[in-house]
Amino acid sequence: MPSPDTVTAGLLVIGDEILSGRTKDVNIGATADFCTDLGIDLKEVRVVSDETDDIVDAVNALRARYTYVFTTGGIGPTHDDITADAIAKAFGVALPIHAEARAMLEARWRETGTEVNEARLRMARIPEGASLIVNSVSAAPGFRIGNVHVMAGVPVIMRAMLEALVPVLKGGKKVLSVAVRAAVGEGTLGGPLGALQAQYPDVKMGSYPQMGKDRVMTELVLRSSEAARLEEAAGKVREMVTEAHRKAGIALPDDAY
Amino acid sequence: MPSPDTVTAGLLVIGDEILSGRTKDVNIGATADFCTDLGIDLKEVRVVSDETDDIVDAVNALRARYTYVFTTGGIGPTHDDITADAIAKAFGVALPIHAEARAMLEARWRETGTEVNEARLRMARIPEGASLIVNSVSAAPGFRIGNVHVMAGVPVIMRAMLEALVPVLKGGKKVLSVAVRAAVGEGTLGGPLGALQAQYPDVKMGSYPQMGKDRVMTELVLRSSEAARLEEAAGKVREMVTEAHRKAGIALPDDAY
Repeated sequence: MPSPDTVTAGLLVIGDEILSGRTKDVNIGATADFCTDLGIDLKEVRVVSDETDDIVDAVNALRARYTYVFTTGGIGPTHDDITADAIAKAFGVALPIHAEARAMLEARWRETGTEVNEARLRMARIPEGASLIVNSVSAAPGFRIGNVHVMAGVPVIMRAMLEALVPVLKGGKKVLSVAVRAAVGEGTLGGPLGALQAQYPDVKMGSYPQMGKDRVMTELVLRSSEAARLEEAAGKVREMVTEAHRKAGIALPDDAY
Repeated sequence: MPSPDTVTAGLLVIGDEILSGRTKDVNIGATADFCTDLGIDLKEVRVVSDETDDIVDAVNALRARYTYVFTTGGIGPTHDDITADAIAKAFGVALPIHAEARAMLEARWRETGTEVNEARLRMARIPEGASLIVNSVSAAPGFRIGNVHVMAGVPVIMRAMLEALVPVLKGGKKVLSVAVRAAVGEGTLGGPLGALQAQYPDVKMGSYPQMGKDRVMTELVLRSSEAARLEEAAGKVREMVTEAHRKAGIALPDDAY
């Protein structure tokens, strides 16, 4: 059962260019870092193509399940930018030109001597009932409707929009983490680590193999929102690693791994 | 309607470390490139945490929908490696020690002087009815059951497993692409590009803004499995871009953008 302090999120990345491999996504990692910093538990990510029905289905599945939904991509001026249409459809609302969005765009266009045309005005279409997310980079706003936050796909704009959301999102209980590195493989640590995990069910213990310079390394990451429990568990894990090193005949100074 | 030549795929990335931001995923991009090279249409990606039910639900949703499912992550020796358990549950089969997988692992362990223990033997547990995917990097195999292909999360191992799959996957009709770069923004091209997209519904046209050195650029990417139609549409798009440059007073040699 999630505690009342638990704030969850789902992320929907929209775009054929990610699924074809032409563009390598960096927004998943940025959103994950953002959520972790705010104590929001990012539970799921989906990537779908530029197809209205796929976007509608994914948004409806995620918004029913998590405190917040974030979307990236598909809010530009061209025919393949259909995110606003899909979100309006998911919420069953109209998609009129939004006066304030239009004013923001026209102000920027006057500054830059950019012609107003039908394609550009697509970016002022905002689902009815949504509020705007300011875009400090290129003016075309994102928007939030219900628990869904619709942002640009261009990473620098997307990150600016995430920052603009900080004041309106409620953070959860911050999850703290401690990393312990070991100079032996996961297979050596798996047994005793599993026993410690059973002893500290409230401290989530992850194990990640790493290819070190000369030998296999393992990074153990402990996560909990309770600082005292986390430190206690980390102490036990450090003892366990020291013992594993001793058995393996590894004598390394503490700062060597 | 997908043609009978259409081969589709879904990817499931499994791991808390991706959702917390601690590890930045690179397997989505690698799988996308791999699928594009084989003419497989990657339709959807999901990222879920190390929770059995979340993995079961996602695998069952994806395997019902696409020709192939690929999964990455969670097949190591520690307690948080639960992918094999979840896949066995999704298919309703047992998860015994697989004799050939055990033999592969033990051969490697003999070479490296690695102790056989319960944690390491977890990696030989393979769902009943599955066949192995060879791991040339670290011996612990992946497996395929039904249309689901279960691979490691460590990128170098995951890519080796994808390569091992090439002989057993059927490719689709290869999608060809042509990129046309323009030295004007998306908003300028949106109208005429939309008109060309309507004229060539069988050639998918995408538009991607880019921050150039001194000016906004746009990359237009056309995709189709029909070479002749693709070339015809690309010719029209190039004419459209030349006209947009002319109107904007941009006179660049053809190779400048």
